[in-house]
Amino acid sequence: MRNSTRGRRPGTSRTREQIAAAAARLFAELGYDRASLRSIAAEAGVDPALVTHYFGSKQRLFVEVTELPVDPAAVVAQVVEGPRDQAGRRLAQFVLDVLESPEGRARVTGLVRAAASEPEAAALLRKLIETRLVGPIAAGLGADRPELRATLVGTQLVGLVMARYVVGVRPLASADPGEVAAALAPVLQHYLTEPLS
Amino acid sequence: MRNSTRGRRPGTSRTREQIAAAAARLFAELGYDRASLRSIAAEAGVDPALVTHYFGSKQRLFVEVTELPVDPAAVVAQVVEGPRDQAGRRLAQFVLDVLESPEGRARVTGLVRAAASEPEAAALLRKLIETRLVGPIAAGLGADRPELRATLVGTQLVGLVMARYVVGVRPLASADPGEVAAALAPVLQHYLTEPLS
Repeated sequence: MRNSTRGRRPGTSRTREQIAAAAARLFAELGYDRASLRSIAAEAGVDPALVTHYFGSKQRLFVEVTELPVDPAAVVAQVVEGPRDQAGRRLAQFVLDVLESPEGRARVTGLVRAAASEPEAAALLRKLIETRLVGPIAAGLGADRPELRATLVGTQLVGLVMARYVVGVRPLASADPGEVAAALAPVLQHYLTEPLS
Repeated sequence: MRNSTRGRRPGTSRTREQIAAAAARLFAELGYDRASLRSIAAEAGVDPALVTHYFGSKQRLFVEVTELPVDPAAVVAQVVEGPRDQAGRRLAQFVLDVLESPEGRARVTGLVRAAASEPEAAALLRKLIETRLVGPIAAGLGADRPELRATLVGTQLVGLVMARYVVGVRPLASADPGEVAAALAPVLQHYLTEPLS
């Protein structure tokens, strides 16, 4: 690439951030398949070559922009510590906090939408549920069958994203976040610590 | 079309069924976008013109093959009648019965997958949750805020389809259907009849 040996230009990391933000918007709006590198570049107002320069491939760009805006390990610690019978409430609150922030919502809805049709995205979503976020929470709370519990929590969280943010089922889509978190809390608590059958 | 005035050939309705079955498989496997009329015709072993002849358009074919394999009104009656505190269990049982049948699974996963990226499919899914299946169940059980309750049930059902059948999160994907229904029953009961906050 021309001038690359002269080092990074001022504004370089801002360009990178612009591309990532544009990609997050388009993956969330169009899904992985239809969000082309060309359309992402156009949305960011940059040359398509810059997208490849900074991110290498569409798949790597996708992995980066669907990463949670918070550290999963910190969330796990926060949910597992504190009164055990309130773990569902803490997890519900965290989930709504992420989904009600524009950045978190774009990242998570982009991932869930793409997981419906893209094996790569489905693998990322499985990993988030099984080994990075919900699995360690279920294991940390010490109930029986933590893997099954983690995936049952996963069904509720993925379904919330689909119904409230992707499909827009009413009146859930316009319900107050606090109300949604309150309705979800006992369900997550049930899956995390209560007898399953 | 040639010969159309001579009436339907023997085997006509079988051809129609073959096309519908092929479409259901491909919509479930590939999603709405990538399942072309040409690929559906190839899967069914028929000429692409026959697909258009029987179904008119891809969208009408999709509507037909994502219809539930049972009458939603009958399911509503079955869930609403009987002991109120077992309504969640009855609904969970019905849902697993449909999803564990090959035809029901293909239809429902095809609809949910497509809803992630197709506005038409999202509208069909919203209608199923809001006005045809879950909405009437919630209203029939007589708790407060039936519309919100219906959509909360919808989050759990859509999430189950995504996590167990589309994304394949383990060990949920391989768990016994009876066990999944038992884990879901109190959650659906909570959303249908218990205080929400």
